[in-house]
Amino acid sequence: MQRLATGGLTLAVLIFGVSAVAAARRPAQNVSPVYGVALPKGYRDWQLVSVAREAGKNNDIRAILGNGIAVKAFRQGKRPFPDGSVLVRLAWRFQSSPRNDSVFPAPQSFIAGDLINVQVSVKDSKRYAASGGWGYGQFENGAANQDPVLTQACFICHAKLKALDGKADLVFTDYSQ
Amino acid sequence: MQRLATGGLTLAVLIFGVSAVAAARRPAQNVSPVYGVALPKGYRDWQLVSVAREAGKNNDIRAILGNGIAVKAFRQGKRPFPDGSVLVRLAWRFQSSPRNDSVFPAPQSFIAGDLINVQVSVKDSKRYAASGGWGYGQFENGAANQDPVLTQACFICHAKLKALDGKADLVFTDYSQ
Repeated sequence: MQRLATGGLTLAVLIFGVSAVAAARRPAQNVSPVYGVALPKGYRDWQLVSVAREAGKNNDIRAILGNGIAVKAFRQGKRPFPDGSVLVRLAWRFQSSPRNDSVFPAPQSFIAGDLINVQVSVKDSKRYAASGGWGYGQFENGAANQDPVLTQACFICHAKLKALDGKADLVFTDYSQ
Repeated sequence: MQRLATGGLTLAVLIFGVSAVAAARRPAQNVSPVYGVALPKGYRDWQLVSVAREAGKNNDIRAILGNGIAVKAFRQGKRPFPDGSVLVRLAWRFQSSPRNDSVFPAPQSFIAGDLINVQVSVKDSKRYAASGGWGYGQFENGAANQDPVLTQACFICHAKLKALDGKADLVFTDYSQ
């Protein structure tokens, strides 16, 4: 009886252990690691905050969109951002447009190529208290990148802004009129 | 009597002439010359079509927004654009961001500076039949540029696209996912 009970316990631990590992590997609800941030539904319909370009290794052109709470805060100059603010940064390959250039007097036209990735910042001052009130996620082809190191790098980079610009609330982007 | 009548006619011509010149100089209802295109109310809330950069003399970074009719057509790949489609192109000064660069490993960050101008394209295949179905306007600080040569140059440039890409319906921008 003792051996039977021990065997059953071992089996139960094994089964539970295997399913727990499987759950950890599966992108549960397709959310980011560390923060559990999901790609917001309908984000592509959101209003534009601003545009930017990262040269160097990134070599992208990007747009930053915001949900209603975030855009309202931007327009009112309200900082820190209220809880519920969500920012979505879309980065596309920066590519020249030979078609457009043939219309212009000189090669000068660059457009958005393929979508590289989408990064999401969610403001929740309680849930994300350990990361300045922001939770982060990076999405490629609609799927959350499951690398915790990459995901934690979001906050590491945004946190550097605090020393440079304490009023920015860890947000690089300003609203463009 | 003859002299009086002639004098009256001269006066009438003078008054009419002066007021006509004044009307031409005044941005009547703040619309573009040639096409009578106004800056659409609430355009800054519209959805994003794509982003781009013009180097060279323009040296800008830009966003193209569309009203509901235009964005729906873009997403469905519908060409020509239906009447009522309106596109708004915002161009900002392309400027480096020393603040952002100090966070990144190398200088690489460019952001949107001051708004340079806003260009508007309105699709109305009947009203603008002589210009491929599109009416144009350029706005600086919210006011329609009253230069007819500049305004007609919109169509001259967009019309060049027809020979290169007949399916584009004179629109340079493609929708970015």
